[in-house]
Amino acid sequence: MVIQSKQNRKIKQIRKLFTHKRRELEKCFVFEGKKLFEEALKSAVPLEGILVARRFMDVNRHQLDAISSEVSIEVVENHIYDQLSRQKNPEGILCVAKYFDFQIDLQHARHLLLLDEIADPGNLGTIIRTADGVGYDGIVCSEKTVDFYNDKVIRATMGSFFHIPIYKADHFEAFLQGLKHQNFFVCGTSLNGNSSPKSPIPRHSKSALILGNESHGMRPQIETLCDFSWKLPIYGKAESLNVAVAAGIMMYLTVIGDKK
Amino acid sequence: MVIQSKQNRKIKQIRKLFTHKRRELEKCFVFEGKKLFEEALKSAVPLEGILVARRFMDVNRHQLDAISSEVSIEVVENHIYDQLSRQKNPEGILCVAKYFDFQIDLQHARHLLLLDEIADPGNLGTIIRTADGVGYDGIVCSEKTVDFYNDKVIRATMGSFFHIPIYKADHFEAFLQGLKHQNFFVCGTSLNGNSSPKSPIPRHSKSALILGNESHGMRPQIETLCDFSWKLPIYGKAESLNVAVAAGIMMYLTVIGDKK
Repeated sequence: MVIQSKQNRKIKQIRKLFTHKRRELEKCFVFEGKKLFEEALKSAVPLEGILVARRFMDVNRHQLDAISSEVSIEVVENHIYDQLSRQKNPEGILCVAKYFDFQIDLQHARHLLLLDEIADPGNLGTIIRTADGVGYDGIVCSEKTVDFYNDKVIRATMGSFFHIPIYKADHFEAFLQGLKHQNFFVCGTSLNGNSSPKSPIPRHSKSALILGNESHGMRPQIETLCDFSWKLPIYGKAESLNVAVAAGIMMYLTVIGDKK
Repeated sequence: MVIQSKQNRKIKQIRKLFTHKRRELEKCFVFEGKKLFEEALKSAVPLEGILVARRFMDVNRHQLDAISSEVSIEVVENHIYDQLSRQKNPEGILCVAKYFDFQIDLQHARHLLLLDEIADPGNLGTIIRTADGVGYDGIVCSEKTVDFYNDKVIRATMGSFFHIPIYKADHFEAFLQGLKHQNFFVCGTSLNGNSSPKSPIPRHSKSALILGNESHGMRPQIETLCDFSWKLPIYGKAESLNVAVAAGIMMYLTVIGDKK
């Protein structure tokens, strides 16, 4: 049975999952595209269902048949899919998955990334992708950091969402204090910090690098908990760097410190 | 006279400048927001005209009066402005400026950034911002790199558009060959390149760093012209980094090489 109407119950349910409120209620989230679908299959993320446009089913029937015993697959007319989709050029596959609980192994973690009120979904997704790329062990978000189950975040991670543990701290300050008790070197970043072209994190130290909000940086109560406040030197006329770029450079500098 | 209609000739003219075709015809471009307006005033960019919403004029009359002898200022009803605006939260100021011809002083340039078919305006804007931030001397775009006069590009630069020379090469390959004759070390970047956590550019060398398209990287004919093809080591499971993040890390590594 191919879904023919945008009033179909499942279509309406999925549309609601693009909102934060509904995701929190159902503990489910959605993402689109073949690449993310394949990365999700390789991961431990629990898929609830898959919605495919007729054109996608026609081309990928074999791959979908192979998983049809494990997950429910619905087919929908192309134009209904395209109305629902948030992609610019809808590929024709959308997955619904359950919230998961990737635990970060703090005992063995070497490098953590902490995000204090990052607001832009594209920035958060790009930061997750980079943290994966440089081999960080996990990401912890503050209460008000944008929801990482937002479909724009997941899209910008290009699959890294399914590679690296990410977690929202219900009590970010307390979590940070806990890290300090476990001998993590807590390195904040701030435009008012100490300028250094190299990572200030001591060799062989476990570390937590904190990036703050795009406009306001870290909150003052977070900054006071830091062992060091780091600023990348700016050599040109720009006042600051994009937070995802700054995060990328800083994370990279902390890991190449290890490899020397 | 406050403009009352969206059918007003000036409003229609400005709306057309959001398209590449019209910009090329008139050799004019538009950008919005107070920050960019102020950066443009500090620069040598020739402003043609300014359009402000009534609410913006009410609050910033003093600042606008001070420049009203040099540039024409039109006031428009708030709702007309908001319909025209491309900002999510329209501030109420839009500038029209003439294409400019920032020359790059190749004689004295130390670090150039070359962009081969970057497609996304947000990426290009972020890369321009970072190139400014790390103190690069100029940016040269290939024929098919997204138009840097696109308003989304300029917005993402956060003002750096007015700080660093940027130029479109009509013959990118020939330009690159010219740089080689002038003893620039041409460093391409590629996922198939030589992995190095440090900049491969020889100390004291003039250099051109090339970043390629988000999906396909540099074109093969560009890659063959490179003195070195550089890949950042990836320590995690991501296949690649976002191009603006990779550009940021690589540019940073090339400039800190100088400062040691």
